Formats: sequence, C-alpha cells, structure tokens
Amino acid sequence: MSQPNDTLWINARLATCDAAVTAPYGALDGHALWLKGGVIHAVLPQDAALRAFGDGDIIDAKGAWITPGFIDCHTHLVYGGNRAAEWEKRLTGVPYQQIAAEGGGIISTVRATRGLDEDELALVSLPRLKALMKEGVTTIEMKSGYGLTLADELKQLRAARRLEAAMPVEVATTLLSAHALPPEFAGDADGYIRHVCEVIIPAAAQEDLAEAVDVFCEGVGFSPAQTRQVFEAARAHGLQVKGHVEQLSNLHGAALVAEFGGLSADHIEYLDDAGVAALAAAGTVAVLLPGAYYFLRETQKPPVDKLRAANVPMAVSTDLNPGTSPFASIRLAMNQACVLFGLTPEEALLGTTRHAAQALGRAATHGQLAAGHVADLLLWDIEHPAEIVYGLGTNPLTRRVFRGVVQHEG
Amino acid sequence: MSQPNDTLWINARLATCDAAVTAPYGALDGHALWLKGGVIHAVLPQDAALRAFGDGDIIDAKGAWITPGFIDCHTHLVYGGNRAAEWEKRLTGVPYQQIAAEGGGIISTVRATRGLDEDELALVSLPRLKALMKEGVTTIEMKSGYGLTLADELKQLRAARRLEAAMPVEVATTLLSAHALPPEFAGDADGYIRHVCEVIIPAAAQEDLAEAVDVFCEGVGFSPAQTRQVFEAARAHGLQVKGHVEQLSNLHGAALVAEFGGLSADHIEYLDDAGVAALAAAGTVAVLLPGAYYFLRETQKPPVDKLRAANVPMAVSTDLNPGTSPFASIRLAMNQACVLFGLTPEEALLGTTRHAAQALGRAATHGQLAAGHVADLLLWDIEHPAEIVYGLGTNPLTRRVFRGVVQHEG
Ligand SMILES: [Zn+2]
Ligand SMILES: [Zn+2]
Repeated sequence: MSQPNDTLWINARLATCDAAVTAPYGALDGHALWLKGGVIHAVLPQDAALRAFGDGDIIDAKGAWITPGFIDCHTHLVYGGNRAAEWEKRLTGVPYQQIAAEGGGIISTVRATRGLDEDELALVSLPRLKALMKEGVTTIEMKSGYGLTLADELKQLRAARRLEAAMPVEVATTLLSAHALPPEFAGDADGYIRHVCEVIIPAAAQEDLAEAVDVFCEGVGFSPAQTRQVFEAARAHGLQVKGHVEQLSNLHGAALVAEFGGLSADHIEYLDDAGVAALAAAGTVAVLLPGAYYFLRETQKPPVDKLRAANVPMAVSTDLNPGTSPFASIRLAMNQACVLFGLTPEEALLGTTRHAAQALGRAATHGQLAAGHVADLLLWDIEHPAEIVYGLGTNPLTRRVFRGVVQHEG
Repeated sequence: MSQPNDTLWINARLATCDAAVTAPYGALDGHALWLKGGVIHAVLPQDAALRAFGDGDIIDAKGAWITPGFIDCHTHLVYGGNRAAEWEKRLTGVPYQQIAAEGGGIISTVRATRGLDEDELALVSLPRLKALMKEGVTTIEMKSGYGLTLADELKQLRAARRLEAAMPVEVATTLLSAHALPPEFAGDADGYIRHVCEVIIPAAAQEDLAEAVDVFCEGVGFSPAQTRQVFEAARAHGLQVKGHVEQLSNLHGAALVAEFGGLSADHIEYLDDAGVAALAAAGTVAVLLPGAYYFLRETQKPPVDKLRAANVPMAVSTDLNPGTSPFASIRLAMNQACVLFGLTPEEALLGTTRHAAQALGRAATHGQLAAGHVADLLLWDIEHPAEIVYGLGTNPLTRRVFRGVVQHEG
C-alpha cells in the first residue's frame, strides 16, 4: 500500500537500463514507476500499478522518456585556476618542456588549488557541478590529486563533501594523492609514495573522507611497483582501489587493479588482451574517457571490440579536469564515446548509468530504473533514447528527479 | 555629444578583433565602448570617453572581457525531424546503402521538413537558435536545402525570417536548393538544376528571401558544371555565391567560387594549393566546419597552414544540421577547430567574429568592436580570452548585448 508521500509516474516510456529487461535500453512501454522514500519501490505494468497505488501523487509524464539519473564516475572537478593560457601556448607551438619550465602543467593546478581554502575551492568548482547537474548528473565521483600534501588533499575531499551538502547530488570521493610528484618530494617518488601510504591514506580513511584510492600508473606518473604499494595501503585501510592505467603506454596497470579486485580501470587506450581478460575475470569496469583522448589528440583507441566480446562493462565519464579534459558535459563525453570510440548510443547510455554505478560500487542501488534503486530519474523531450547522445547544444532534459523529488524543470 | 539613449561601457577589457589593433585578439585595456543607436559610435581611451560622453547611461563592466557578438556563418538550422535513429544504425554497423534504402539520409530530413508548415518549422527550429544565442550568437546564417521544391525552399527561408523577427538576432538567409536531388527529379540532375536556375532562384530573388546562393559541389552532390550554372543564375539575379566544396574530394569547387568573387568556400578539407591561391586572390573566406569532420570521423584536414601562409581569412562555424553536425554550439565548433584542425584560440575567435562577418558580406559592419560596427557585444567572466574556446559545459557568458540592448544576464 502506498504512503501519502509516495509518487507514481505514469504515461512514461522507460529506458530502464536494467539488464533483466531485454529490449534495447531496457525499454519498457506501458509501465509505471512507483517511488517511495527516495527509492524506486516498483516498476509495474501501469494498470496494475494504478490499482495497487493508494494515497500518493500521480504524475503524468505525458509520453516523456525516463532514464536513470546520470552517474559521472571519474572527475577531477574540484580544482583552482584553469589552464587555458597554457593550452593556447601549446596550440601556438610552445614545447611542453618550456611550458613546464614556465610553471605550467599539472603543478600550476596544484599551486592554484593549494592557494584556495575549502570554501573557495567549493565555490570555484560549483559552476562545473551545476553544468553537469543541468545535463542530468545525479551521482558524481570527485578525486583529490591537486593538493599533494596531507592538508591539501583532505581539503579537496572536504570541498567535494561541501558541494554534496549544498546541492541535490550524491558525491563519491576518491583519494588520488598518487597523481603527480609534489615539488616537496622532487627526485624522491618512493619517499612520496611512502608518505601517501603511511600518512595520507590512513588520515583519509580515519576521517572517512574517501571511498576509494586511485593512482596515476604511467611512465610520467607512478610505477606499477609504487601503484601496488598504494593499493596495499588502501586495502589495509578498507578502501576500494581503481587506477588511471594504460592511457599513454601499457604498464599492465589494469591487471594490477584487477588483482586487487578494483572497481575500475580508467582510460585504458593501451590495454592488451591479457588486460581485457584480467578485467573480465575480476569484474572490474572499464572506464572510457574520450574527452582526454580528444583534447590530447591521441590516436590509440581503447579496445572496445575486445571489451565487448569479453563482456567487460564499459562506463563513460567526463574526466573533467583543467589539463586534459576541461569539459563539464557528460553528454559531450557520451557523444565522443560513440563518434571517437565507436560505442553505440545504448552503450553510451549504459556507460553513464548501470555501468557507471558499478564503477562506483553502487551496482545494487544506482543506475537502473528497478525496484530497490535510488529514485534518481531524468525526463526527456525526445522520440528515441539515441537523441540524448546524438545532438549537443540544445538540452532535451525537461525534469531531473533526485531521490524522488523534482529538482529542475527545463 | 551623446544623446540620452547613448551608453558607455567602462572598466572592460576589450577583445576588439579589429585588425588595426595589433595586440593578440585586438585587445585594448583602459578603453571604453560608446554605443549610439545600436551602433558602436567610438572606442576611446576611457578618460577621454568619460570627458566627451554626456547624458547617456554609463555601465560598469567591472573588469569583464568584451568580445564582438558571435557570427555563425554556415548553418542548416531550419529543418524538421532529426536523424538520431539513423545515426544509431550507422554505429551498429548498418551500411549506408541500407539506411538510404530504408528512407534514411538527407531525403528523410527533406520529408520531415516538407511535412511542416512555416510556423511549425520555425517552432521546431527555435530551441536550436536559442541554444546558439545563449552562447553568444548575434548573427546567424540559415540555409534552405531541405525543401527542394519551389514552395518548400521558400517556406524554409520564410521560417528563417520568422525566427529573426521573433528573436533579438540577425539572420542571413542563403538559398541552397542545389543541396541534393529531390525524388521528383530522380535521374535528372540537369533538369533539377535548370529548375533551380530558372524557377527557384528567380523567385527567391524576386521575394528578397535570400542574400546568397550556395551549392553542394561534390561527387554525391552536383558537378562543377552544374555549380557554374547555378552561380551564373545567382549573379544574374544579383545574389552572392558561396559553396560547399572540397569536403569529400577535390573537384576544384573553391576556385569556382573564387572565380565568381564568392563570399566563402566552406568545408575545404581537400583544398589544394591552387585552390588556396584562388581564395587568396579573390578575397574569399575559407569556412572551417569541424563539427562535420568530427561527426563523420573524417581524417583529411583542411590545409590550415597554407591558408594561414596565404592570408586567407578563416571562419569557423557549426554547420548545424541533422545529418552531419547536430551541434547547436558555436563554442564546441571553436574548440574543435583548435583541437582537430590546430587553430589557435585567437584564430577561432576571429573565425566567429571578424572573419565570419566577412563570410557573410558584413565585414564593414559586423564582427569587430570598432566605430561604425553594430553594437553586438558579449561580456565574459574570464581572465583570458582563450577561456572562451578552451572549456565547454559551463558558460562564462554573463551578458549578451544586441544592437546596444542587454538581452541576457547569465
Ligand atoms: Zn582522470
Ligand atoms: Zn553545410
């Protein structure tokens, strides 16, 4: 029996993204969505739902498509400054070495991020969060990694939590202290990794500021051996692991993530067959980040066909960050995933719903229109779900529902 | 002396895009913009401006950057339907021949466009126009080409004029009846071109519905000989010419446009050295359309270095259309022009201001912050003009001024 605050959404076309529904997009016609206490109570044939539903509100979707809320499962949204001037230099032919020597590159973002306090950091990051929410994001991951000291890393994570408290959105925080070598540890990467493992990870765990730990495992980042140390420290403190791996070269980082039962292996342009098999065996999600591929003019594409063949779930995310993907648009990322990597629109949609939920350890509760999942929904003024992914500039999202409550009418 | 309705914008940083100002972006600090009757009356050092200015409003820009309004010089904005489902088929591997046999391709847009009356056509196109205006577009070109009968071509142009009348934006209309062969003329391209030259062009000129005539000169479009016929008919009726040329192959269409003193040669991925020289000699603008290049996964890039060396002005535009560039975002096009074609952010900005004005025959009146130009301005919450082009998703535009009147506060 329904309660007074239950709601029943009727006359909608549901793209459930539920694997148990075999139609493309998990599409169900003639079904109603029964929401109770911020959770999807039931997805029922509309006639049956109307008979069973009691006192709550009945909302007529008037033929709109409904999808799950979008989940942006890999972002560096919290940062200070921007790198537009540095990008301009690159486009006018200034070599990267000179840009770095002039104080550019990731360290310029570290400097700008360190220079802001927690409030300021949340404030400058808010427009980026709002832009994503306007496109339908209801759950978003945010990483540290521009602080690179204990205090600044925790400050970044607290700013992420501050944003969550201020806005109708769920934030998953990730500690990415092993993102770059801070100037304080120049020439001593092992020393910094020890500091990350012995000081920063324990403190973040102690204060419950991060769900997971991430590492930039790359020639220009940290080695597989250092990555392993960080993952072991994470495990010792009960935190999940994930990795920036195989973006620019193949260091077999994805297999390392898989070995630790990690949530996701992200970027993976250079993933090899063994890496694909390792992800498949571990149930680790492959997170595709086409924005960085585009912005860096890369040519090596992730092995989408092989991931598909091995049934590795593929998520799609913005990788929003000032250096390599300054795009606060999840629909742009979905479009790029199709155009640049050859995903289908359905795969792109699953990549920001069911598979992104899995990448954040939320497969049982997020990313599907199915009983027991959070009541985060998007209503679309479209004829076909592919339209969400196909065009950009206009925004066909008419309503964004977070935990059962309508947040936005377009 | 100023009049009561004059306005003086002070404390701004001007990116004038004026070739007479040698700093990058034509940047001027410490200057004020004096607007009178919808036109820029003067750009003066601020002290001098304040002394000379009399009764009007003084508006404090509080350090904002001001650029000219954006000019989107190549769009197919007015159309019915969309091609998302067809795009999805392509991504799932359905061959183009099968899609065409199933009624897909450009003819599906022709069918949808013919099926709407003038009011409906304006209405379905309005969200696309609003999206572009929200990013700062103040002048926009709109082509016919999805009617392909006399009545439907003129209907498309009238819908464009209807949009201009309804919104604070200037619309430049272009007759593109030689876009595709309509089913009524199957197997008789020459007959259709005669119809275009003898019936449609004269009628459009007679009703003053088009400023210019465009042709899709391509193996899958119309031949150079047919293009020449259309250009001759245009000239005979006092209309400017431009062309979709060298997009998929090199038919020397750009040289043909140049021979007719045309406004612009558009796409030009396959432009050769002779074509570059012809554009340079004729003063014809090269219009780059990276959205279509991106969406079609093309690999042949336009010869940007050669165009630069020959001082051919390069414009950048969305090419907004349902088949090959479903992107109502001029900032996306500017970003893509940099990332995919290697333009600098300054070139991208000139490509949507001064050079786009020239592509529409409006070099003397649009696209610059200079005396005698229309008072179409954009105010930006940025530190550096490159930020306009660098990031997407967020919108740093705070105010859009059309003909001296503030239209929008962000
Ligand atoms: Zn990242
Ligand atoms: Zn076009």
